[in-house]
Amino acid sequence: MKTISFDIRTPSRNSFMDITDPLQSILREKGCKSGIMTVFTPHTTAGITINENADPDVQHDLKYKLSEMIPKDEAAYRHNEGNSDSHLKSSLFSPSLSLIYENGRLLLGIWQAVYFAEFDGPRTRKVHVKIIEDNNS
Amino acid sequence: MKTISFDIRTPSRNSFMDITDPLQSILREKGCKSGIMTVFTPHTTAGITINENADPDVQHDLKYKLSEMIPKDEAAYRHNEGNSDSHLKSSLFSPSLSLIYENGRLLLGIWQAVYFAEFDGPRTRKVHVKIIEDNNS
Amino acid sequence: MKTISFDIRTPSRNSFMDITDPLQSILREKGCKSGIMTVFTPHTTAGITINENADPDVQHDLKYKLSEMIPKDEAAYRHNEGNSDSHLKSSLFSPSLSLIYENGRLLLGIWQAVYFAEFDGPRTRKVHVKIIEDNNS
Repeated sequence: MKTISFDIRTPSRNSFMDITDPLQSILREKGCKSGIMTVFTPHTTAGITINENADPDVQHDLKYKLSEMIPKDEAAYRHNEGNSDSHLKSSLFSPSLSLIYENGRLLLGIWQAVYFAEFDGPRTRKVHVKIIEDNNS
Repeated sequence: MKTISFDIRTPSRNSFMDITDPLQSILREKGCKSGIMTVFTPHTTAGITINENADPDVQHDLKYKLSEMIPKDEAAYRHNEGNSDSHLKSSLFSPSLSLIYENGRLLLGIWQAVYFAEFDGPRTRKVHVKIIEDNNS
Repeated sequence: MKTISFDIRTPSRNSFMDITDPLQSILREKGCKSGIMTVFTPHTTAGITINENADPDVQHDLKYKLSEMIPKDEAAYRHNEGNSDSHLKSSLFSPSLSLIYENGRLLLGIWQAVYFAEFDGPRTRKVHVKIIEDNNS
């Protein structure tokens, strides 16, 4: 079916926003049964990832360690928008993620959630969702 | 077709397990000709990746450098399970990988193998495989 | 449709080659309307990524910071081809990227381009493209 898009408002420069519920809702509303869902963000300073949904300390540690590995400011950076770190994090996390769904539900582990990974917020961001229903199922 | 799942036993905290053969076997057993295979692991401290299958020193160097970049223990980590590094490696490697197959075989380079990347083993882990056969081929 | 392949010549050890135009051309020539395109490179020292297409300083900063995080030479590396860094960058960037297209065009943000990420050039490299047209659109 045609790509479905929605917006998300991110609260800070680095943040992980759980978008599992809106993705599940799309499957339910469209009556999808079995297939692949590609989640894509059209921005060069953000990504789509999966990580733990239980302990918020995991997100703290992800952000802490990422920022230590890839600092916001470095003398050798030439790009003058102050977000060279955000561009690198975007390529490392990837703006695209392909998920499996069965019986109308994303096939995720019990601790997994899908996150919009913001690396240069706060901003309003766009997410595109493309569903390929498997006609052979 | 319906998602196919299999288990894998990982031998150590950080390990790369070659899963190319079981993936090829699925294509053969199901008689798949041409399409896309999405390989997904439902864990937040592991990933699916591709790397060299020839020289075992490559795996040594990958594990060495990753552990140096992202140490297991850091004073600033708050998550109390001792695997914050594993969570970050999982997001960087991604738990999802999409492969192309033609003529019933994965389209891989001569040196490429598909690996289950364990970052918090040893454990028994699950791998999900979704095949979208291309009806237009 | 059958996988489409093309070659690319990379100019230096680390380089980002914009391959957006050849990908768009494939959609146009094949008359594709709506679906998913998986771009895959069969090499273990390269990747496929998305980043900014406007300011060349972004590429400079990506290459600078990556090389600082993952140096070419380290005493602990065992692989004797001098490209252990390239193998790690390949897994971090991923050799596979799935894109959405609608109305015959890749659904990219205004600043996004698709790049072949070379980490061990200069070389002649191969890119495979698999298109799954969405028959339900």
